[in-house]
Amino acid sequence: MSKVSIIMGSKSDLPVAQKAIDNLKKFGVPFDIHVSSAHRTPHLVEKIVTESDADVFITIAGLSAALPGVVASFTTKPVIGVPVSGTLSYDAILSIVQMPPGIPVAAVGLDRGDNAAILAVEMLSIKDEGLRQKLKDHRQEQADKVVSDCKKVREDVGC
Amino acid sequence: MSKVSIIMGSKSDLPVAQKAIDNLKKFGVPFDIHVSSAHRTPHLVEKIVTESDADVFITIAGLSAALPGVVASFTTKPVIGVPVSGTLSYDAILSIVQMPPGIPVAAVGLDRGDNAAILAVEMLSIKDEGLRQKLKDHRQEQADKVVSDCKKVREDVGC
Amino acid sequence: MSKVSIIMGSKSDLPVAQKAIDNLKKFGVPFDIHVSSAHRTPHLVEKIVTESDADVFITIAGLSAALPGVVASFTTKPVIGVPVSGTLSYDAILSIVQMPPGIPVAAVGLDRGDNAAILAVEMLSIKDEGLRQKLKDHRQEQADKVVSDCKKVREDVGC
Amino acid sequence: MSKVSIIMGSKSDLPVAQKAIDNLKKFGVPFDIHVSSAHRTPHLVEKIVTESDADVFITIAGLSAALPGVVASFTTKPVIGVPVSGTLSYDAILSIVQMPPGIPVAAVGLDRGDNAAILAVEMLSIKDEGLRQKLKDHRQEQADKVVSDCKKVREDVGC
Amino acid sequence: MSKVSIIMGSKSDLPVAQKAIDNLKKFGVPFDIHVSSAHRTPHLVEKIVTESDADVFITIAGLSAALPGVVASFTTKPVIGVPVSGTLSYDAILSIVQMPPGIPVAAVGLDRGDNAAILAVEMLSIKDEGLRQKLKDHRQEQADKVVSDCKKVREDVGC
Amino acid sequence: MSKVSIIMGSKSDLPVAQKAIDNLKKFGVPFDIHVSSAHRTPHLVEKIVTESDADVFITIAGLSAALPGVVASFTTKPVIGVPVSGTLSYDAILSIVQMPPGIPVAAVGLDRGDNAAILAVEMLSIKDEGLRQKLKDHRQEQADKVVSDCKKVREDVGC
Amino acid sequence: MSKVSIIMGSKSDLPVAQKAIDNLKKFGVPFDIHVSSAHRTPHLVEKIVTESDADVFITIAGLSAALPGVVASFTTKPVIGVPVSGTLSYDAILSIVQMPPGIPVAAVGLDRGDNAAILAVEMLSIKDEGLRQKLKDHRQEQADKVVSDCKKVREDVGC
Amino acid sequence: MSKVSIIMGSKSDLPVAQKAIDNLKKFGVPFDIHVSSAHRTPHLVEKIVTESDADVFITIAGLSAALPGVVASFTTKPVIGVPVSGTLSYDAILSIVQMPPGIPVAAVGLDRGDNAAILAVEMLSIKDEGLRQKLKDHRQEQADKVVSDCKKVREDVGC
Repeated sequence: MSKVSIIMGSKSDLPVAQKAIDNLKKFGVPFDIHVSSAHRTPHLVEKIVTESDADVFITIAGLSAALPGVVASFTTKPVIGVPVSGTLSYDAILSIVQMPPGIPVAAVGLDRGDNAAILAVEMLSIKDEGLRQKLKDHRQEQADKVVSDCKKVREDVGC
Repeated sequence: MSKVSIIMGSKSDLPVAQKAIDNLKKFGVPFDIHVSSAHRTPHLVEKIVTESDADVFITIAGLSAALPGVVASFTTKPVIGVPVSGTLSYDAILSIVQMPPGIPVAAVGLDRGDNAAILAVEMLSIKDEGLRQKLKDHRQEQADKVVSDCKKVREDVGC
Repeated sequence: MSKVSIIMGSKSDLPVAQKAIDNLKKFGVPFDIHVSSAHRTPHLVEKIVTESDADVFITIAGLSAALPGVVASFTTKPVIGVPVSGTLSYDAILSIVQMPPGIPVAAVGLDRGDNAAILAVEMLSIKDEGLRQKLKDHRQEQADKVVSDCKKVREDVGC
Repeated sequence: MSKVSIIMGSKSDLPVAQKAIDNLKKFGVPFDIHVSSAHRTPHLVEKIVTESDADVFITIAGLSAALPGVVASFTTKPVIGVPVSGTLSYDAILSIVQMPPGIPVAAVGLDRGDNAAILAVEMLSIKDEGLRQKLKDHRQEQADKVVSDCKKVREDVGC
Repeated sequence: MSKVSIIMGSKSDLPVAQKAIDNLKKFGVPFDIHVSSAHRTPHLVEKIVTESDADVFITIAGLSAALPGVVASFTTKPVIGVPVSGTLSYDAILSIVQMPPGIPVAAVGLDRGDNAAILAVEMLSIKDEGLRQKLKDHRQEQADKVVSDCKKVREDVGC
Repeated sequence: MSKVSIIMGSKSDLPVAQKAIDNLKKFGVPFDIHVSSAHRTPHLVEKIVTESDADVFITIAGLSAALPGVVASFTTKPVIGVPVSGTLSYDAILSIVQMPPGIPVAAVGLDRGDNAAILAVEMLSIKDEGLRQKLKDHRQEQADKVVSDCKKVREDVGC
Repeated sequence: MSKVSIIMGSKSDLPVAQKAIDNLKKFGVPFDIHVSSAHRTPHLVEKIVTESDADVFITIAGLSAALPGVVASFTTKPVIGVPVSGTLSYDAILSIVQMPPGIPVAAVGLDRGDNAAILAVEMLSIKDEGLRQKLKDHRQEQADKVVSDCKKVREDVGC
Repeated sequence: MSKVSIIMGSKSDLPVAQKAIDNLKKFGVPFDIHVSSAHRTPHLVEKIVTESDADVFITIAGLSAALPGVVASFTTKPVIGVPVSGTLSYDAILSIVQMPPGIPVAAVGLDRGDNAAILAVEMLSIKDEGLRQKLKDHRQEQADKVVSDCKKVREDVGC
């Protein structure tokens, strides 16, 4: 059983998806992954979404980036959209952010597969207290990393 | 029988659609018109597109503007996309222009329902010589209007 | 007990917050509301967030729009960010979308308090099947509205 | 006899034109190709356009990208415009998209010579049912490629 | 005999052209004025340019703003381009500024018909010392206006 | 005792911080340096700021760049913000420039750690005449460098 | 004797300057005010700057907004730049933010005369402890206003 | 005696200046060249401009790009501004294009030192018929190059 379903619009989006995969593994959240295109395989997208047992969708797309919105059109589960950088980058950002009233997508930053995964875990933690604790631990790790980076930089600079 | 099918994403796009309607009427091209949303009524969009006997689609949408691409995903007939202006305007322009490889949309200018209609007529004129002549007459009218505007401005300015 | 906590950065963001309020009421989801500024009242923001029993935060801010990220820095619950339009609008959009790795914010569209509320309900529906059904009904209402708009436009245009 | 005439504004646009050539060859559509500049050889552009027996023009240009509009000024046949990326890229996109009322250009995405060719074939298919079938086959190939990419990614990721 | 020829792309550009007219009159420089469209009346544009006895062209256009470049393609006299503001404004600015190598256009600011006229006079002053003196007087007037504005503001503010 | 406190949001901002360090050393101004994140270590940021004896803060951040504003929320000392370039760059610029009324940040240019340091020294020179003189000497050096560059270029070009 | 000198590029910038004036009066900081243009009265700008006894300059300009940088070229005192909004707004923001290495300007937000004044007071407080206390009081007032706005909104919304 | 004076804001602008130099040499137009900064050496800029015997100035600058406007403030001769590309590029373009009323600068495209030179020659040709003929020859060369490129591309493509 999957908790999160990752759908990328093109095989070339895999590096961004990998950041999501790495983070979901870290939190021990089961997931599945698909390449499916809103424009080239619209029925396949619908099939993946409607047959899925996931609680949250992570969708990854560049250029006109219709995939997140199209996934959202087939489900009332939360859909996270990750814009993929390219020559312009604003194309994917604005397509994903500027959804019309009634059909929300949760946009995260450019190429931020990592944040998409963490946001998905935050959503799942609404009913899973175990994930809540893992998120707090993860925050602490991040804070510790900042403190250790700070120490290192101060030593290097010598102040 | 319709030659052109106009689909707007929201009732609020009607002023832009009206410019297309006015021009199609001028050229005597039969058309039908629909309000249908890529995000709110995806199956209806598919039904309209796959059951249509039109040769060309004119699609009109603002914000993340997925409609033109979604229509294009269900047909191999030419799809014209008209971005509708709003707070940003670049959202709709880029969504419609930046289609991925393999599934083209023919983008026209912001709110340019008029040009969408004329472009549709130009496409139809590939097999309809009568429309070709009407297009030439329309061009001549436009040129005559420029000449008459020029005369008027020169008189007003007094040079 | 609140399920959703709405925090707006300034009293002037109330019209956007109102769209969230209207939608949360429609779904019968309990909420509370605050005006609190990341820059003017940082300790108050922290107090609201850490003492809250809400499952989801909706944050609303314009200009440099630090509020969503600052709220996210104090919680591992999901934080939705609504950019408020202004002279530029890109300032608020990019501040909310472009969060650094590790601390996600779920950005929705410009002034889209409505979508923030629906996204919050979608998140809550992960553990509340009753909300899931209400979301499906809401989708159907939207679809029905599109169909009725379509009929009305076709009658008005006369085609 | 040519069905499609490709005009690029500068020899440096050849890589984008090549994508159009490759696709037209795939569909077996006869074409010719020209380098001609709206600004450096305006009379040559006019001569190419007015003497052409093509049904559709594909025009390719970067920077201020006047070529698509200038070609459109000399013909009532459909003109497809391909913006070429550069330091800004928005210069070419906006010049091609934002045509004035009365003289449409069909804009495709940045560097999308491939989509320009497919759009041209879609236009030609209005009177050529054989091309319609080839377009459907091409769509199927694309869909098959997505499915095969999906399988490959899932194997690589191991889920 | 005209020294400056003003060409606007549409009658709607007249308010911007008027600022040029007012300034040319102030400097006593003879001019003529035309409405002519690069896209709707390309041959008329060519005729105006090639038959003109003007030393400088002022061209005014919005949207994809091909007019300045098209005028420049027909003459080796200096061509000044004035972008006209609209929904986007960057379309006209970038089209006029980003001319390809070999065919320059002198771009001035958005809606700056006034500066176009002064720049034209500066060009004419290369061979006309009388105009040079008038330009210096005009500069002095502007400086005097700033000084008088300064005095007025200081009185109003009371400092 | 430090006069200037440099806080960067991430270790990766060190190259920009180094430009500030180099310039502060040149002026002999004592400083300290920290890595601390508005989002990952908000309490640490507050601690650094409230316990600091510095007169001026230099803050360095990319992406949504909340750090300068968050630092400013904890102090009434002047805070200089340096946006760090990235895929978009406008995200960091606008976040730092567009602060809400009441809580100013002094923004300098993209990656301009050098100018942040000089601006800090200019602020300190309000009460330290010795620094004023050093600033004047530094300006003279810069002017001398321009003159020497000019001579070198003229020799190279041979005019 | 003035502590702060306000220079605006045009009389039309007065509404933005007024926000600076109001705030400087509130803090009891003596100031003077000038209208002077970098382009129309360059010598007057130099004279104002070099003869001034102010510790800080506030400069206000729109469009190409050279004034802040030109003032900075004549002094080593801190110069605050306020971009004034207009058709584009990015022109003034980028001109003021993107100063070259060596000559900093402290940019504040679009039309933020208020923040320019507060930033100036923060700079002056480096040597004036009385101003430091006033700044803290001002912060408290702002925080109190947020708390009172919060209470009011909660009463109005009824939650 | 110089006809054209080239001023670049920084030694790093030399590659752009070189394109201007190459073109001025081609037309046999005498020129001089300077590195001088609006911000670092304002008096030197004034001295170069006011002592020059040139008829036209070519100014080259990146970032906030005040140089063209500052040069224009000291002369009534035509000033051509060349924006230099960088991380943003829009900073330099907008600073040079968006001059305030009364003080025009003639902007050419990003890094277009070549077009700046040709525009300068076009201005000089107002009183020098010999240059007019050279410009026409140069246009012919460009057209011949396009024709030869066209032939070459057609041979390579084999159509």
